[in-house]
Amino acid sequence: MKYVAVIGSSGNINENLRKICKKLGKELGKRYILVTGGRDGVMEEVAKGVKEVNGKIIGILPFDENGNKFNSLEIKTGLDYQMRSFILIKSADAVVSIGGEIGTAIDILIAYANKKPLILFKGTGGWTDRFQKVLLDGKFLDSRKLTEVKIANNINEVVNILKNVLGE
Amino acid sequence: MKYVAVIGSSGNINENLRKICKKLGKELGKRYILVTGGRDGVMEEVAKGVKEVNGKIIGILPFDENGNKFNSLEIKTGLDYQMRSFILIKSADAVVSIGGEIGTAIDILIAYANKKPLILFKGTGGWTDRFQKVLLDGKFLDSRKLTEVKIANNINEVVNILKNVLGE
Amino acid sequence: MKYVAVIGSSGNINENLRKICKKLGKELGKRYILVTGGRDGVMEEVAKGVKEVNGKIIGILPFDENGNKFNSLEIKTGLDYQMRSFILIKSADAVVSIGGEIGTAIDILIAYANKKPLILFKGTGGWTDRFQKVLLDGKFLDSRKLTEVKIANNINEVVNILKNVLGE
Amino acid sequence: MKYVAVIGSSGNINENLRKICKKLGKELGKRYILVTGGRDGVMEEVAKGVKEVNGKIIGILPFDENGNKFNSLEIKTGLDYQMRSFILIKSADAVVSIGGEIGTAIDILIAYANKKPLILFKGTGGWTDRFQKVLLDGKFLDSRKLTEVKIANNINEVVNILKNVLGE
Repeated sequence: MKYVAVIGSSGNINENLRKICKKLGKELGKRYILVTGGRDGVMEEVAKGVKEVNGKIIGILPFDENGNKFNSLEIKTGLDYQMRSFILIKSADAVVSIGGEIGTAIDILIAYANKKPLILFKGTGGWTDRFQKVLLDGKFLDSRKLTEVKIANNINEVVNILKNVLGE
Repeated sequence: MKYVAVIGSSGNINENLRKICKKLGKELGKRYILVTGGRDGVMEEVAKGVKEVNGKIIGILPFDENGNKFNSLEIKTGLDYQMRSFILIKSADAVVSIGGEIGTAIDILIAYANKKPLILFKGTGGWTDRFQKVLLDGKFLDSRKLTEVKIANNINEVVNILKNVLGE
Repeated sequence: MKYVAVIGSSGNINENLRKICKKLGKELGKRYILVTGGRDGVMEEVAKGVKEVNGKIIGILPFDENGNKFNSLEIKTGLDYQMRSFILIKSADAVVSIGGEIGTAIDILIAYANKKPLILFKGTGGWTDRFQKVLLDGKFLDSRKLTEVKIANNINEVVNILKNVLGE
Repeated sequence: MKYVAVIGSSGNINENLRKICKKLGKELGKRYILVTGGRDGVMEEVAKGVKEVNGKIIGILPFDENGNKFNSLEIKTGLDYQMRSFILIKSADAVVSIGGEIGTAIDILIAYANKKPLILFKGTGGWTDRFQKVLLDGKFLDSRKLTEVKIANNINEVVNILKNVLGE
C-alpha cells in the first residue's frame, strides 16, 4: 500500500472544511495509508474519514506529544513542529494540501524540494491557495522545476490525480 | 496498544539468535506493536515472529531506504543511521536489546537517556552483554540513575518484565 | 556580537547580484557575525565582502560537505540541505533574504515560524520577491502574525532595519 | 585550522579535573579550534584555557539555550541534548573525552560510529574510563573496527596523538 500525507491547518477549522476533510478521508482510507502530523484540525478530520472505512492512519508527532484519538499508530519524533515535517513528508508517496498556516507552507515546500507528487486542493484557503498565485508557469515552485504541482478542484480530482501518480 | 522497540545486530546473525528472535517476536506480536529500525538481522527475525501471530511492525528507516518485507508500516526518516535511532527510541514505550554492534550501543544509551524501560537480553552477545559488565550498582548506565536497566535471561523474563512495566 | 544569517540563491548568480552581495557583506562584517549555508552563490559573495573588512563567517554545511573558502568556521551538520536550514536559522538573531530558489523559500518560512526578524531584500528576484506578493496585510506570512516581515529597497535600508532590531 | 571536540561531564566537576581541563585547553587553543557542547563542566573549563591563549571556541548548543561565557561563537541547534551531539561530533576532526555521564557516553559512540579519531583521557573517570574496560582488542568499540580508539595518560599524550592524526 502507498502512503498519502495530508497536510493542512491545525486548530479549529470551519464546518465546510471539516466535511471536505472527512469525505476525502473516506476516499483515501480505502486505497492508501494516511500519514499526517497526528494532531487536530485538518489532520484529525481526515483521519476520522479514514477510520470510518477502517483505513490506517500514521501520526508523526512533534516532541513527546500525544496525538488525536484516530491515529492507528503514532511516531513521537522528539523533533520540533517544523523538523518533524521532514519525517512526515519523506515517508509519503504523495502529498495533499488543504488550507494551512506557516507549518503547512513549510510542508508544501519540503514536499516540492523532495520531488514528491504534490496536490493543492483549490478553494481550501490558507497557503494551499496562496501558493497557487505564485507558481511558475502555473505549476512549479521554483525555476528548477523539481516536480509538477497539481491543482485539484474537488475530492474526485484529488483521487484521480493520486490514482494517476501512484497507480490504481 | 503499547510500542516495544527491539534493537540489535543488523546483517547476518547466527541460527541460535535467529530462533530466539523469532520466538520473541511471536510473544511480542500478541500484545504490543513492534518498532524496529526496519532492516535486516535481529530486526527482521523478530518481525518474522510478530508477523506469524498477525502482529504489527513499524520500521523506522534511515535516509530513503527500503526496509525488510515484514514491516507493516515504514517511516522513511531522511536521517542517517544513528540519528534515526532517536525517532525509533522516542516512539517506544519500552526497549529490548539483543546482541548488537555500535548502532545498538547508541540505541541502548539513547533509551537510557530518555528514561525508557530498557531490557538487556543476557547471552545474546555484543553490546547487550558488554554493557552488563559496566553497569553502576548492577543497574544504571550513569550516576544520575535515570532509569533502572533490567536484565532478562530468557524470553519468559523479557515478557514478564514488559508486563510489569507496561501493564498486562 | 549578534549573528545575521544571509540566505539566498546558491550556484551562479548574475553580476549585479554579486556586487550587491559583496557590498552588503562589507556592511554586515563590520557589525555582525555572518551565518550562511556555507556554499556558493549569494552565500559566497556576501562572505567575500565580510572577509574584506575582516569580519567573521560561520558556514552551516549539509552532510559532510566542504564549504566555500571564505568561511571562518564551518559546522558540518550531517543533515540534508533543508534540515540543516533549521540549525542555520535558529542560530541567527536576524535573517536577510536575497533572491533564491526552493531552499531559500524554506529558509524564509522557517525564519518566520521561529519569529526571527526577517528582511526581504526587494528586487533581488526569486522567492525573496515572490513572497512579497502574498504577504498578509503587506507584512505577515500567515494569519498568526508571528513576526513582521520587513522589506528593504537597498543596502542602506537593510543595515538600518538591522540596527533597529538588533541595537546599534 | 583543524577542529577538536572536547566532550565530558557537565555540571560540577572536581578541582583536579578543572585544572586538567584548563591546562588541556591552553594546549589545544594554540593549535586548533575547540568545539564543545557549549555548556558548563568540562566544556567550560577547557574553554577557559583556550581563551587564555586567545584561541577560538565554538559551542554547539541544544534548543535555544545560552552557553557559557567563553564561547567565541555559538550555534543554537534547536535539537535536544543528544541529537545536538551529532552536529558537534560531525563538525570535529578529532574528539577528546574527559570523564562524563550518559551524554558523554553517547558522544563517544557517535564519534566512533563516524570514524573520528577518538582519544579517551585515562583517569578522568565516568564513561571515559568505563569504556576502556570493554574495548575489543584493547582498541575498538565494536567488531567492525571502524576506528582505533586511543588512550592518553596525560595532556602531553593527548597533544601528541592529536599531532599524529591531524598533522603538526
